[in-house]
Amino acid sequence: MGWSMAIDNAIPKPLRVIFRGVGQVFFCCNAITGLIFLIALYIGGVTAGLAATVGVISSTVAAYLLGFSDDDIEAGLYGFNGTLVGPCLLLFLENTPQIWFYVVLASILSTVVLAALMRILQPYNVPASTSPFVLTCWMFMVAVYSFDGFSRGAVLPAPGIPMDVATTSVATIEAWFTNFSQATVEAWYTGITKGVGEVMFADSVIVGILFLVGIAITSMRGALMALLGAIVGVVVPILLGADKALVEMGLYAFNPVLTMMAVGWVFLKPSNGTALLALLAGVLTIICQAGLANFLAPIGLPTLTFPFVLVMWMFLFAAGKSKYWKS
Amino acid sequence: MGWSMAIDNAIPKPLRVIFRGVGQVFFCCNAITGLIFLIALYIGGVTAGLAATVGVISSTVAAYLLGFSDDDIEAGLYGFNGTLVGPCLLLFLENTPQIWFYVVLASILSTVVLAALMRILQPYNVPASTSPFVLTCWMFMVAVYSFDGFSRGAVLPAPGIPMDVATTSVATIEAWFTNFSQATVEAWYTGITKGVGEVMFADSVIVGILFLVGIAITSMRGALMALLGAIVGVVVPILLGADKALVEMGLYAFNPVLTMMAVGWVFLKPSNGTALLALLAGVLTIICQAGLANFLAPIGLPTLTFPFVLVMWMFLFAAGKSKYWKS
Amino acid sequence: MGWSMAIDNAIPKPLRVIFRGVGQVFFCCNAITGLIFLIALYIGGVTAGLAATVGVISSTVAAYLLGFSDDDIEAGLYGFNGTLVGPCLLLFLENTPQIWFYVVLASILSTVVLAALMRILQPYNVPASTSPFVLTCWMFMVAVYSFDGFSRGAVLPAPGIPMDVATTSVATIEAWFTNFSQATVEAWYTGITKGVGEVMFADSVIVGILFLVGIAITSMRGALMALLGAIVGVVVPILLGADKALVEMGLYAFNPVLTMMAVGWVFLKPSNGTALLALLAGVLTIICQAGLANFLAPIGLPTLTFPFVLVMWMFLFAAGKSKYWKS
Repeated sequence: MGWSMAIDNAIPKPLRVIFRGVGQVFFCCNAITGLIFLIALYIGGVTAGLAATVGVISSTVAAYLLGFSDDDIEAGLYGFNGTLVGPCLLLFLENTPQIWFYVVLASILSTVVLAALMRILQPYNVPASTSPFVLTCWMFMVAVYSFDGFSRGAVLPAPGIPMDVATTSVATIEAWFTNFSQATVEAWYTGITKGVGEVMFADSVIVGILFLVGIAITSMRGALMALLGAIVGVVVPILLGADKALVEMGLYAFNPVLTMMAVGWVFLKPSNGTALLALLAGVLTIICQAGLANFLAPIGLPTLTFPFVLVMWMFLFAAGKSKYWKS
Repeated sequence: MGWSMAIDNAIPKPLRVIFRGVGQVFFCCNAITGLIFLIALYIGGVTAGLAATVGVISSTVAAYLLGFSDDDIEAGLYGFNGTLVGPCLLLFLENTPQIWFYVVLASILSTVVLAALMRILQPYNVPASTSPFVLTCWMFMVAVYSFDGFSRGAVLPAPGIPMDVATTSVATIEAWFTNFSQATVEAWYTGITKGVGEVMFADSVIVGILFLVGIAITSMRGALMALLGAIVGVVVPILLGADKALVEMGLYAFNPVLTMMAVGWVFLKPSNGTALLALLAGVLTIICQAGLANFLAPIGLPTLTFPFVLVMWMFLFAAGKSKYWKS
Repeated sequence: MGWSMAIDNAIPKPLRVIFRGVGQVFFCCNAITGLIFLIALYIGGVTAGLAATVGVISSTVAAYLLGFSDDDIEAGLYGFNGTLVGPCLLLFLENTPQIWFYVVLASILSTVVLAALMRILQPYNVPASTSPFVLTCWMFMVAVYSFDGFSRGAVLPAPGIPMDVATTSVATIEAWFTNFSQATVEAWYTGITKGVGEVMFADSVIVGILFLVGIAITSMRGALMALLGAIVGVVVPILLGADKALVEMGLYAFNPVLTMMAVGWVFLKPSNGTALLALLAGVLTIICQAGLANFLAPIGLPTLTFPFVLVMWMFLFAAGKSKYWKS
């Protein structure tokens, strides 16, 4: 929105670049939006906020020092992967003093990987998005088995052969859709808002709502797509019979939130057609996430936002072959 | 052949496109060939035939709705991945009513993935071939662990750490090559014909023979390469000491069948040189298949036709660097 | 150096091409260097030397027969992957007569994969390096589970779920850095020299020293980078608390040796800046190696030189986006 871009331009450049870096997690090149996201992260937990701050600064400074494009840096493009690397490593690994060295190193690597992927994807005009964050964090998280200096936190799933884990009965599925008691309404509300918050690892209703507000400041369509993505991320897994506890924590929703924003708002020309396309992409993201989660089970890694990246890539590459949805 | 192309052109367009889609599973842009394949599939089993029909229609209609190239659609290029998705999901997952929704969704995704890979591979003039089918089906099959609405069928290998599984003794190997009793002749005949049939998951001698007939109608060289591929897929694994039961079911043969057709007939200029190259590619496909099978063992997925895709890609990319085999 | 290039040119062409192929393992297009490497390999063990000889000849002859670029062949580019395939398969698989057939076949495949990757990477001006060797050997090594004709050797790690394996205590870490008794000095010396030797699977101090001498004949900066890489490969894992036994065998060092040579000498313009960049790349290679090792644990494969390939690719692709480090 006009007034927010005016404030954005009034913020001193170094701060503006950092805030925009945070904002770009949800594709928002807007310092006000980024500032709201950062405040929300600190509300969710001081450690997470601090980790995001260290991450976004490390990856942005690294981009300056390595001589990458000034325009890209100023748009915050070298900040959002670092923003995600920080809270991710602090959530999944044990919080020790040396973890901060690990966060800085991983944020720097995410900048190198982003530049590499930007160059590879350039001829196709397709973005690298959060893939540098995912690839870097996977590498750093699975490396800790070999190092005494770091340990896996309690949240990281133990490595093991995948097994049938869904426990939802048909009765539960029906209850979610027909029995609108206070309990189910709350479950819906929690799953949808936390789904937006979990994009930055925040298991919190209020953080999710603040994220939506921040996005709405940049674009109403963006916020609508995020909300629709979160709804898809609750409805579809319940219909397919996924683990109810995961759905209620928003853990099936953060990927379709990003997919629907990317396909329905950011990278294709906004229209009713691309909104429908975004819906299809959102549904497929759910299945992709379940698949990738089981695929990674033997080594005990979480999917992070890779299901979003994969489905978004497929739809954006394919859009170049379509008569209707040229990007 | 001339007469078959004349009939092909006489078939009403919607049917022609669908039949060609089935024909393209074996690289045959010919509705008569596709019709013979489809009839063979129904002979092999009504469920498999129905699944292939639903798959080919879903993926082709999706390509129309998404606005992909009319020429590609009319050549059946948006049909063959769906043709394979259908029988694959019905073979490996439990047959429930909701599986048909799953087949439609996966067929649509295979169309999006095909368009994406066509755009990526375009500058290199290398085909995506059956990779969209493989990637989509892997994702959908490994996702079912997480969903109560679907279950893995009995055929899908259980996830587990790979172990030495070959049980062939030297005596058995010698018997296959020296003792031409009726039993070994039958084993050879079964392995070779079923090898062609298994390209579309048909564990049937008669289906394999009908497939060969269908290919021969489009091209004698194509049928010869398919037959040679099936022979390689029986001889080489037996020489290497592979599991005799798998060889006799044609499960080592369907990948070299496709590799030899692609390298020796479809994508390089046909000559004695490319026939030899196809033979080398066929032999390497066997090792690639054994490797990939063990690679996928921890998550319990079958290789499908990915060994063929990998080896074909290597040979077609490499052909662009060769003085002799420009594609 | 001048005199060594003069001798290089005086050697008869077939021998020169073969020796250069061995030299290219350490990026040295120099027959004298290659000859020293080959002699070192035979000193390390006759079987390894023979395997490297068979490998380099097979892959180079295959390149001739398949019609790949004469210039590339004469520079030894079609030789170094075969040089590595031979000793690798003989180290990790059981030494039987038929293993030599396997080595020849894998060397031929490595040539096809190299040509394919060269064509894919050509638009980006990024080298395939040892990736064809790694991909081919992974495929061939994991395939042997399925074939009675081959077995895994005792050295190959058993497949299994990754676990915390590091056993270094803080006391041990301190001892390596403060207690410069003869034992720790020897441990440092062994780890660093073997680290260079392990690039070609030689668990030997003398082979490592001969490799350094060979590199120095081609380039002093190259030898310096190799030495620094080996030091990084001992210091960093000890600081991170990695398994001391692996560090002392040089098993964390051979990847940063190659990374630092590639980034600090071969592929970017040599300067103090690229030397620092190489150091960063070397440190990240350690974490990448630990990560990939645990990633491959469920199927029981070693990382080989893939950590080097991945980090080098990231830095070289990224260099194309940098104002300072255009390649």
